[in-house]
Amino acid sequence: MAQSKKRVLINLVHPNMNESRVNKVLNEVAQKEDFVTINNLYAKYPDFKIDAKKEQQLLLENDVIVFQFPMYWLSSPALLKEWLDVVLEYNFAFGEHYKLENKTLLIATSVGSGTAQYNKNGSNKFTVEEILNSFEASANYIKMNYAKPFVTYETFVISDEKLEESAKNYVEYLKELAK
Amino acid sequence: MAQSKKRVLINLVHPNMNESRVNKVLNEVAQKEDFVTINNLYAKYPDFKIDAKKEQQLLLENDVIVFQFPMYWLSSPALLKEWLDVVLEYNFAFGEHYKLENKTLLIATSVGSGTAQYNKNGSNKFTVEEILNSFEASANYIKMNYAKPFVTYETFVISDEKLEESAKNYVEYLKELAK
Repeated sequence: MAQSKKRVLINLVHPNMNESRVNKVLNEVAQKEDFVTINNLYAKYPDFKIDAKKEQQLLLENDVIVFQFPMYWLSSPALLKEWLDVVLEYNFAFGEHYKLENKTLLIATSVGSGTAQYNKNGSNKFTVEEILNSFEASANYIKMNYAKPFVTYETFVISDEKLEESAKNYVEYLKELAK
Repeated sequence: MAQSKKRVLINLVHPNMNESRVNKVLNEVAQKEDFVTINNLYAKYPDFKIDAKKEQQLLLENDVIVFQFPMYWLSSPALLKEWLDVVLEYNFAFGEHYKLENKTLLIATSVGSGTAQYNKNGSNKFTVEEILNSFEASANYIKMNYAKPFVTYETFVISDEKLEESAKNYVEYLKELAK
């Protein structure tokens, strides 16, 4: 008997998917998998008025929660921050109840430049992983398991071949986390 | 002749100043100083529709830029993220022009718990400074000088006396940075 898979929720956070190249491809490949649900936050909440209860329900129905976004100023686009502030309520995510405890959090992000820029000798002096500390700390706080981030580098210049490879690796990683 | 002071702009980012205790006191004390301008972002932009040109003008008129906010999910409230994404445009903050180069960026934040929680053995496993990496990296990228963050700890339980002391230290630090 096949082992039943965990469910993966991808909270896609991109203000401009029509003009996206990298996240569009990652998203297209991921959504073909039957264990994946895509939740396009900018499409649902262009006015930033987030339905906390609906989002909480989606979280409860899934085991692996992905935040997929292009890096904007060394963090997520603003809507994800609003989502965190509104959805991760007291007694839902922490307090008397930690309802996301032991679920997995994965950050899947894309950055314009390469690892040469994202290190202590680069123009911003931090690795992508270090820049994401705030997300890792939030996961720790609500007792989620923080997976190693999935990063697509050099999106300004990435070739079609490299992008396809990144999309393939993304799906492989999601499968691994959903085991 | 007295040395002319640099100008300090405090971008105050608090979704609920009416119910604030800590940031209200810090803000009240800071705004008495004639070299300080307070820019209350949630009051100006409750709908998240930020006037980039107006904000850029304010940045150009000041030498020390402060982001003052209570920590929400180990980062700033969402409006500051939107502000960064909209205001720090190509050819204003980076690209062919780095118009904020050599200005100083200060994060002034307040956190509910103490340093025991904000370290590698605490519930989120990072210091406040490490959690703010994303802001430090952004400052590096646009060639601003990143000042040591000003942190008010234990805001859930802070006494009036401690709060007054923190406000006094805040103003002293602003004066130091504005020299």
